[in-house]
Amino acid sequence: MTDKLIIFDTTLRDGEQSPGASMTRDEKLRIARQLERLRVDVIEAGFAASSNGDFECIKAIASHIKDSVVCSLARANDRDISRAAEALAPAARARIHIFIATSPLHMEKKLRMTPEQVFEQARVAARFARNLCADVEFSAEDGYRSDPDFLCRVVEAVIAEGATTINIPDTVGYAIPDLYGSFIRQLRERVPTSDKAIWSVHCHNDLGMAVANSLAGVMQGGARQVECTINGLGERAGNCSLEEVVMAVRTRRDYFGLEVGIDTTQIVPASRMVSQTTGFVVQPNKAVVGANAFAHASGIHQDGVLKARDTYEIMRAEDVGWSANRIVLGKLSGRNAFKQRLQELGIEMQSEADVNAAFTRFKDLADRKSEIFDEDILALVNDESVTPDQEHYRLLAMAQASEMGERPHARVTFAIGEREFHAQSEGNGPVDAVLQAIESQVRSGAEMLLYSVNAITSGSTESQGEVTVRLQRGGRVVNGVGADPDIVVASAKAYLSALTKLHAHSDRVAAQG
Amino acid sequence: MTDKLIIFDTTLRDGEQSPGASMTRDEKLRIARQLERLRVDVIEAGFAASSNGDFECIKAIASHIKDSVVCSLARANDRDISRAAEALAPAARARIHIFIATSPLHMEKKLRMTPEQVFEQARVAARFARNLCADVEFSAEDGYRSDPDFLCRVVEAVIAEGATTINIPDTVGYAIPDLYGSFIRQLRERVPTSDKAIWSVHCHNDLGMAVANSLAGVMQGGARQVECTINGLGERAGNCSLEEVVMAVRTRRDYFGLEVGIDTTQIVPASRMVSQTTGFVVQPNKAVVGANAFAHASGIHQDGVLKARDTYEIMRAEDVGWSANRIVLGKLSGRNAFKQRLQELGIEMQSEADVNAAFTRFKDLADRKSEIFDEDILALVNDESVTPDQEHYRLLAMAQASEMGERPHARVTFAIGEREFHAQSEGNGPVDAVLQAIESQVRSGAEMLLYSVNAITSGSTESQGEVTVRLQRGGRVVNGVGADPDIVVASAKAYLSALTKLHAHSDRVAAQG
Repeated sequence: MTDKLIIFDTTLRDGEQSPGASMTRDEKLRIARQLERLRVDVIEAGFAASSNGDFECIKAIASHIKDSVVCSLARANDRDISRAAEALAPAARARIHIFIATSPLHMEKKLRMTPEQVFEQARVAARFARNLCADVEFSAEDGYRSDPDFLCRVVEAVIAEGATTINIPDTVGYAIPDLYGSFIRQLRERVPTSDKAIWSVHCHNDLGMAVANSLAGVMQGGARQVECTINGLGERAGNCSLEEVVMAVRTRRDYFGLEVGIDTTQIVPASRMVSQTTGFVVQPNKAVVGANAFAHASGIHQDGVLKARDTYEIMRAEDVGWSANRIVLGKLSGRNAFKQRLQELGIEMQSEADVNAAFTRFKDLADRKSEIFDEDILALVNDESVTPDQEHYRLLAMAQASEMGERPHARVTFAIGEREFHAQSEGNGPVDAVLQAIESQVRSGAEMLLYSVNAITSGSTESQGEVTVRLQRGGRVVNGVGADPDIVVASAKAYLSALTKLHAHSDRVAAQG
Repeated sequence: MTDKLIIFDTTLRDGEQSPGASMTRDEKLRIARQLERLRVDVIEAGFAASSNGDFECIKAIASHIKDSVVCSLARANDRDISRAAEALAPAARARIHIFIATSPLHMEKKLRMTPEQVFEQARVAARFARNLCADVEFSAEDGYRSDPDFLCRVVEAVIAEGATTINIPDTVGYAIPDLYGSFIRQLRERVPTSDKAIWSVHCHNDLGMAVANSLAGVMQGGARQVECTINGLGERAGNCSLEEVVMAVRTRRDYFGLEVGIDTTQIVPASRMVSQTTGFVVQPNKAVVGANAFAHASGIHQDGVLKARDTYEIMRAEDVGWSANRIVLGKLSGRNAFKQRLQELGIEMQSEADVNAAFTRFKDLADRKSEIFDEDILALVNDESVTPDQEHYRLLAMAQASEMGERPHARVTFAIGEREFHAQSEGNGPVDAVLQAIESQVRSGAEMLLYSVNAITSGSTESQGEVTVRLQRGGRVVNGVGADPDIVVASAKAYLSALTKLHAHSDRVAAQG
């Protein structure tokens, strides 16, 4: 057992599985680079066999990431494992992560397999994976609700076949710290070869205890890997939050006595990037990365903080990457300064022509907005981040007007690939009018699940509005994001971006939570 | 020790202390009624001595709430305690909650008092409070970072003076479940008279463990009261979430073996009301009350859920008040149906004239929106919820237009009290233009900290937009909320609502976290 706690980030796999959080290849690559800057030990990049798109994402990430281990999920079968190995081929350090459910309920109702069949499949799959990759993780899906005797047998078998990490997820978020910690400890005590593998925890937040459960698995159970996501992104109530688990171990080093390799000053930039890319807002009272996490309102508290900062603050805002001054560029900034900032933000352009196109949009924005923040640049690049080989929906022109007592009206011109469309419509509001105008031509039949706007940067009314639109059609959910100082233009962009994603068909198989 | 876990809600006191979460008297009263429907045991209604406004809020809540104990916070001095008692006079059941800091850091740096002075003040205050009220809670601010020997002496003394509840807050969110549970247990074991009081926990979420810490205080420590807030609202990363702690105890009754009196089907309505009133969004991946808390996206999960719901769901959405069908009223609904719905929502109008005015706005909205949801009604009433004796900023007319390539323009007419203003302005977007037009007349000099829009009800583009604007001036932070199918109109309403609140001066003293 080492004193190092391994941070395994699954934002790009379990996080992305959250309805509406699906990301494009470029978006995933950008987040992977940020995770590398964050010094995450393992990046779970996706589930290679689930779709060709996911396969390509993992391959791209494996090609670019050098410092972190890159991992792909695979069901416990030869085809899935082969696809994972293939996608991971370019990686400097690769991990194959196989999983199979071990709880009575999941085996019977979902897999329709007997425990003996599950045992055998786990064993064979571990051997197969180990022949393709030296670093093999095994997850017992719904492990916390599994029979300990059976689970011990399975774990012992996969360790014998060469699994190097053993993960015991609380798939449904049912655990309590004390019980989960004892459960992990019991397994480690009963499996004779338990010290041949690193034990890992993977907790969901359905009862609000994912972080505490994970840390009980570490302290009481002896696990040395935590699986987590940025902002706690993930299905239902999400996964254990990377930022919370890392800052708990750092802030309470007196108790945990563990090292984490994370560069905590990259936490807030990572949180912003994930939130902006997926359109999943971070609530103001979210620990560590929420807008209010370091704010004090009350008179007494302010007084207290002035007198001695540690009366109310156990962490320093700057240690997690909050910094007051994030102004980077303005109207007079040149192409070189812009390009350098792109690089610093981890944004790679495919060609000089792309840099030029982005710079043109930047200058256009700088004409309307005096201070350009990192978030503005990210939004500007996100606008074009859908993969270029798809049929792109683009906004060309828009005009709208509304007046109290009158019916709002909008005219819009947009293109799908090479083809141009002109439309107009009335609506309940200007946003409704412009979206109805687009729908009158596209007839997507999609249902809008969510519409939200956030000012990208606060401090003045000249901020850009960032609009997120979530559409659903035939069981598929996509998010579109658009930014512009004009909220109606941003809405049109977001809607077209969502339509582009809806248009790009995907028949992905999804995975264990 | 009883098997009942007392739920003490402090949304209206500690929650409201969050920057920007301040509420008007009517808003607080409406939330208090919802807390009563939720069957909360104790409602902390405010901090009577902090301002005249807070005093009046507590008095109003004490007059209307019959089923829950109504509580006011008070510093450990005669004046504060007298004000609390006075505000609570109309209550069916009242509690005075006194607090003083007991940690070395807080005593030295904030109070500038010696431990002996703190001891003496706590003792005298407890006696004074007990003479005014039979139900007295004592909180040792920053209790978790206090010296246990000293804390035991203080607690023993205040119990001797008649304190009936002893609360040990983790004021700065520094605790770990195991340590916090042992800390509470140790205190209870060492104070000889510990069984003469009910012990209480109050945890903050800075490291993401407020719920787990609270429950460790209960299970390992023997506490039987949890202090919490709806949506985990509160300063910094907020307080322990009521919905999470309640659902954990319910879902894991096998482990906790405790009863809670909460009507869980009122949880989601309470969450929505608090979020809508304060403008604090609930993130989609928030446990229990987040929009995604009960959603499944992945193919395997959907399949699993179809085969057996409990493969991935440990709670039922309907048990916490999520219900698919929330359509209540439409264009053809009459005044009686509307009035009845207001009553069901706990909204009380001052007079029949107010009902008529609200009904007129309802009919106007129903002309533009075919399905009127509870949230729409709440928004409609919120529009006018600022206390009527203040100088009200009202929107009378607005017209705006924008076109890509042109500078957006807006004209606006609004009133402050009786006086009418006409203004126009250009802006970066139509929202910027309308807000700048208002500013050109008002010259508030306020800084905008936040601008966000959420569709009130999803499912179609005809949904109303609900805009939240957060303004800061001279250290004061206020939220304004406005709703309209036209997002620009909603923005103007929100801005005027924030200005109204900014205008209503308040010199409140604030309290322990």
